[in-house]
Amino acid sequence: MHTKVCAIIGYGPGLGNAYAETFLKAGYRLALLSRSGIGLGKDYDTEKNVNAFSCDASDPESLKNAINLVEQKMGPIEVLIYNADIAQFGTLDEISEDQFEESWRVGALGLFSSAKILGPRMAKRGSGTIIVSGATASLRGNLWTTAFAATKAAQRILAQSLAKQLGPKGIHIAYLVIDGVIDTADTRENFAPNEPDDFFMQPNQIAETALMIARQERSAWTFELDLRPYCEKW
Amino acid sequence: MHTKVCAIIGYGPGLGNAYAETFLKAGYRLALLSRSGIGLGKDYDTEKNVNAFSCDASDPESLKNAINLVEQKMGPIEVLIYNADIAQFGTLDEISEDQFEESWRVGALGLFSSAKILGPRMAKRGSGTIIVSGATASLRGNLWTTAFAATKAAQRILAQSLAKQLGPKGIHIAYLVIDGVIDTADTRENFAPNEPDDFFMQPNQIAETALMIARQERSAWTFELDLRPYCEKW
Amino acid sequence: MHTKVCAIIGYGPGLGNAYAETFLKAGYRLALLSRSGIGLGKDYDTEKNVNAFSCDASDPESLKNAINLVEQKMGPIEVLIYNADIAQFGTLDEISEDQFEESWRVGALGLFSSAKILGPRMAKRGSGTIIVSGATASLRGNLWTTAFAATKAAQRILAQSLAKQLGPKGIHIAYLVIDGVIDTADTRENFAPNEPDDFFMQPNQIAETALMIARQERSAWTFELDLRPYCEKW
Amino acid sequence: MHTKVCAIIGYGPGLGNAYAETFLKAGYRLALLSRSGIGLGKDYDTEKNVNAFSCDASDPESLKNAINLVEQKMGPIEVLIYNADIAQFGTLDEISEDQFEESWRVGALGLFSSAKILGPRMAKRGSGTIIVSGATASLRGNLWTTAFAATKAAQRILAQSLAKQLGPKGIHIAYLVIDGVIDTADTRENFAPNEPDDFFMQPNQIAETALMIARQERSAWTFELDLRPYCEKW
Repeated sequence: MHTKVCAIIGYGPGLGNAYAETFLKAGYRLALLSRSGIGLGKDYDTEKNVNAFSCDASDPESLKNAINLVEQKMGPIEVLIYNADIAQFGTLDEISEDQFEESWRVGALGLFSSAKILGPRMAKRGSGTIIVSGATASLRGNLWTTAFAATKAAQRILAQSLAKQLGPKGIHIAYLVIDGVIDTADTRENFAPNEPDDFFMQPNQIAETALMIARQERSAWTFELDLRPYCEKW
Repeated sequence: MHTKVCAIIGYGPGLGNAYAETFLKAGYRLALLSRSGIGLGKDYDTEKNVNAFSCDASDPESLKNAINLVEQKMGPIEVLIYNADIAQFGTLDEISEDQFEESWRVGALGLFSSAKILGPRMAKRGSGTIIVSGATASLRGNLWTTAFAATKAAQRILAQSLAKQLGPKGIHIAYLVIDGVIDTADTRENFAPNEPDDFFMQPNQIAETALMIARQERSAWTFELDLRPYCEKW
Repeated sequence: MHTKVCAIIGYGPGLGNAYAETFLKAGYRLALLSRSGIGLGKDYDTEKNVNAFSCDASDPESLKNAINLVEQKMGPIEVLIYNADIAQFGTLDEISEDQFEESWRVGALGLFSSAKILGPRMAKRGSGTIIVSGATASLRGNLWTTAFAATKAAQRILAQSLAKQLGPKGIHIAYLVIDGVIDTADTRENFAPNEPDDFFMQPNQIAETALMIARQERSAWTFELDLRPYCEKW
Repeated sequence: MHTKVCAIIGYGPGLGNAYAETFLKAGYRLALLSRSGIGLGKDYDTEKNVNAFSCDASDPESLKNAINLVEQKMGPIEVLIYNADIAQFGTLDEISEDQFEESWRVGALGLFSSAKILGPRMAKRGSGTIIVSGATASLRGNLWTTAFAATKAAQRILAQSLAKQLGPKGIHIAYLVIDGVIDTADTRENFAPNEPDDFFMQPNQIAETALMIARQERSAWTFELDLRPYCEKW
């Protein structure tokens, strides 16, 4: 058990929560950043190991303030999990300019701002990990991903650019290409009401791989990996 | 010689000008959109075949107004060449949030807005072509492309999403992955002062390929192609 | 009208024939290489501009002999179109080791051998073009492409390696990612009996793009492009 | 500690050995297949947990016999690590047809044959893992990778095709894109004699990631990941 800080930007039910539980169990103290600022709930010793912070990932000032507050209260962030996302789906006709922009602000600008704040600090210490929850949409645009794919592509290539810049300074950047529907109450009901259990990705298994990434030693770092259920058609 | 309208968003010296000359020679009437609203100069019969329009590609309202003005004055745009770009180069430390955003507005949001306006109109006529001046940076991030690559990746995947949506409606979307330094007074001086002539890409040869794209029949359309000088190391 | 020689390895009905007609019309003399050695038929002045040669693309010796014979009879090959292919489809269970090997021999080894013979000769003259009929399978493996995709992937990456090696010597290598079903009597009947006309790719339109590739000037060469019908789902 | 069998095809010093040590420590019994049939040496309890087998990965019959022998002696292979490779480097001029073929036989045909034998057996049990030691060359051809890249590309896309076919049957296929020079006596001397320690990838750290892959649960399997040293330029 160590006491390094793992910050999760875009904490929430589903994958955000799975990251939190997995890294807490692995001995990290947690900083949970979300719009609402809601934390893990009563099952955790929130006093000592888990703190929740309110933050708007689409607003660089808000992000900067929240990250500064985290480090002031809890110490340097060793692992940042960038999980903020607006899964804005729709065709060209359905997506407005504002939605297209909001999607990009949360998915791409927010990652840029986070790296801009934390990159130099991590570089100074010579260590740090930034893991991004990505998607297959980062690799291809499709009918309903007018905004989502453009955002995820920007996010992925930005992460790659960061990996090349910050890797030699000891900072591990990784991008998870999540290729499937994550099992949550929401996705079960709205995305895939009639699918069997095996159709879904268990969020804690994605989080386990993220933890493995955070544990890789620096002579063999992974930048990118895909994740999908065994029975996925792809 | 036909008299269809080709609009070039992001007209300027270099590639923008080469597109203009090539499509004019091929019989198109030209609408040249740029911040300054400057046209092809005195060598062309600007009265009849070429008109210049002022437009800020980073501002959806400005784009919409300019495109409406073009179609009102000259008739429906048959070919749109999206050449607007801020080639903002720099590391994470050197690029500000504002620069990161401005880059995306011009490269990605402007394409989205243009397609949002022209897509339904082209679909109604069952024909139209949108060609985007892309770059290798759309495929990978690098040390100095913190903003540029993130923008180009968003632009490329957006174009792919548009291609899948609009192709079946008879609209040809194409993305040119330009992989080299285009020969202009500016690049000669600032990017590659000591390189031989063969190092550079001749803009009119890129434009020739764009013209070929515009002429492809719809049973075998190209969405993406790369272009580079024969002696390029890649 | 010029009188350069265009050799088509893997000549046959469909795409091979379309390449032949298109390049003949553009002024090339044709060398048609196929297992059977059958040529374009009576409609062409076979005496002067078109010659057919028998050749087994899976056998380096046979290829070498045929290419030597072509150049001896007709002069240096300026454009080589590598169209040889065994479209061997099947799952892991259905494909035998022999089929897996035969597929690779025709698609990948044959291209290697052709380049090994013609590369140095083209390099000596400082010019030449090699165009490969590729497929989307070169980019991803699928359920029924156990052999086909592995072959096409090898072919594509070999072509890319050749492009990097031979480009600076003035040789243009290009790879066409054909993403659709080509309209032939065979595919109409066996692959897609109930599809409308628009489902199919017209081979002559693919050939037109190949001709454009052969005409590109060397400051802006295309290595790779995709081709698909406007209504294709991809 | 469990007693499942992990077979390593292409066992040898360096990465092969690292896989062996890592999976042995994790509780697997090992079957080491190599041309020479040499095993792990005296430090291991070869009687019970480690057996070495002689096998020529380029020859389907030899592979089939060896795999049958392994399963007869040790029980079903649960994890197959395909590490066989001939790193044949050279330009088009330097690589012979025989070398081009031998490279493909070991890297691609051998994987095909192994999957053909083991795939149905693993499918019957509803479980199994096949991990392939891949390389960046699978993604792009380069000047000296005429044979190597064509082989690795075939190998990668074959693995992808296998993943799609066998995944739904409970078999996990994974491809490691190793992007760097692995630290061995040979590479230290011949590839990079003047590089600092940090230039090299530690083989045991690659093997740790392979072990993690083998441990992933099936709702979130990784097919592909890259691995490179933190200071790699890419």
